[in-house]
Amino acid sequence: VPVVSVAKGIENETLFRPTQIITDVLGDARKPSVAALSGPNIAAEIAKYLPATAVAASADAELAQRVQSAFATQWFRVYTNQDVIGVELAGATKNVIAIAAGILDGLAAGNNAKAALVTRGLVEITRLAVALGAREETFTGLAGLGDLITTCVSPEGRNRTVGERIGKGQKLADVLASMDSVAEGVPTTKSVMQLARRCKVEMPITEAVYAVLFEGKDVIHALTDLMTRDPKSEI
Amino acid sequence: VPVVSVAKGIENETLFRPTQIITDVLGDARKPSVAALSGPNIAAEIAKYLPATAVAASADAELAQRVQSAFATQWFRVYTNQDVIGVELAGATKNVIAIAAGILDGLAAGNNAKAALVTRGLVEITRLAVALGAREETFTGLAGLGDLITTCVSPEGRNRTVGERIGKGQKLADVLASMDSVAEGVPTTKSVMQLARRCKVEMPITEAVYAVLFEGKDVIHALTDLMTRDPKSEI
Repeated sequence: VPVVSVAKGIENETLFRPTQIITDVLGDARKPSVAALSGPNIAAEIAKYLPATAVAASADAELAQRVQSAFATQWFRVYTNQDVIGVELAGATKNVIAIAAGILDGLAAGNNAKAALVTRGLVEITRLAVALGAREETFTGLAGLGDLITTCVSPEGRNRTVGERIGKGQKLADVLASMDSVAEGVPTTKSVMQLARRCKVEMPITEAVYAVLFEGKDVIHALTDLMTRDPKSEI
Repeated sequence: VPVVSVAKGIENETLFRPTQIITDVLGDARKPSVAALSGPNIAAEIAKYLPATAVAASADAELAQRVQSAFATQWFRVYTNQDVIGVELAGATKNVIAIAAGILDGLAAGNNAKAALVTRGLVEITRLAVALGAREETFTGLAGLGDLITTCVSPEGRNRTVGERIGKGQKLADVLASMDSVAEGVPTTKSVMQLARRCKVEMPITEAVYAVLFEGKDVIHALTDLMTRDPKSEI
């Protein structure tokens, strides 16, 4: 029986992706055939049969197609992709950008700033993932850009909400203590920073989120630093 | 004196981009040095000094840098880019996708659907622009993706608003008659369809918007057609 992961994150310390954890836990005795299903899929909307799309990713192309046909309906369109690394890294790293998006909302910084954040955020999470063996195209797809947009825009997102409360001046410990669900972007920020350092990849937005969450950096100061970096060419 | 265009659209019939119109009108007698300034720049937010980013594009790299340093401030970050074709085509074609985004809002289709639309919309406008000589990277940048997000998400956008009213069942003629500003996405849809046919580029979302605006196609029917195309690989 193949295993389809719908979890998003990167384990602290091991820095494993969800399908790596599954393979690790199930061990050699039962080498599982694994796939990841990911995309812009807010659960409450799916439950109302609102139209949505997702990506079924597996190194085993046949399994990806099996997942595609098992889950596709008239209101849920599934694309296949063989880049499991990219799909899983996208699902994890976008939560860091979502915290930054929430901080902008907390500061009432507006939609121009939000759009710039999503655009430059996509650039840096793509850069890290490519260094880790992912395909760039996955990040302009539904599990990359698509999921990033939903997570940064939807008011109900847990990670965005954590950011918004921090943007309004609350302390991380207080925010987390008052929540009854998990904001996986917070521990994921630690894992992503560790990966960025290991791969020597520049991730200015992730660094800013890390400094705000774990080093007490002021949010206005973090935003000003990002806006006043040296003038650059876009590409 | 160089000319910096901030207009977005593609002229009907000639299919000229704004800087082509400028060059055409000013003629050989005064060959202007032209640049385009574009990005996620909702005017009302810029006027409030909220943080924003933009792209200064010119085939003349020195002019692009001149525009960059003329417009950059602590709250307005400008990147340079030499791909004028891409920056201008992005600014025009995203308005077609914005009408589709508005239609989804009118149908209350949710953020999963909106994210899928932006993602697949970006794929098809990139495909057209690359066929016309643009660089793909411009479309994952601020004048491409960045502007697309703002336009599809911000409630105040004129093109998104036209789409929303059509999604709620109003007729295009009635919507346009009641507006005192121009929704340039409507005529641009005609120009983009003409370019797509000429370049033989598949643009399913643009085709759906065209059919809804100008051929009386029902919006639910158009959405169902998009969701039930043949199952595909993402890349």
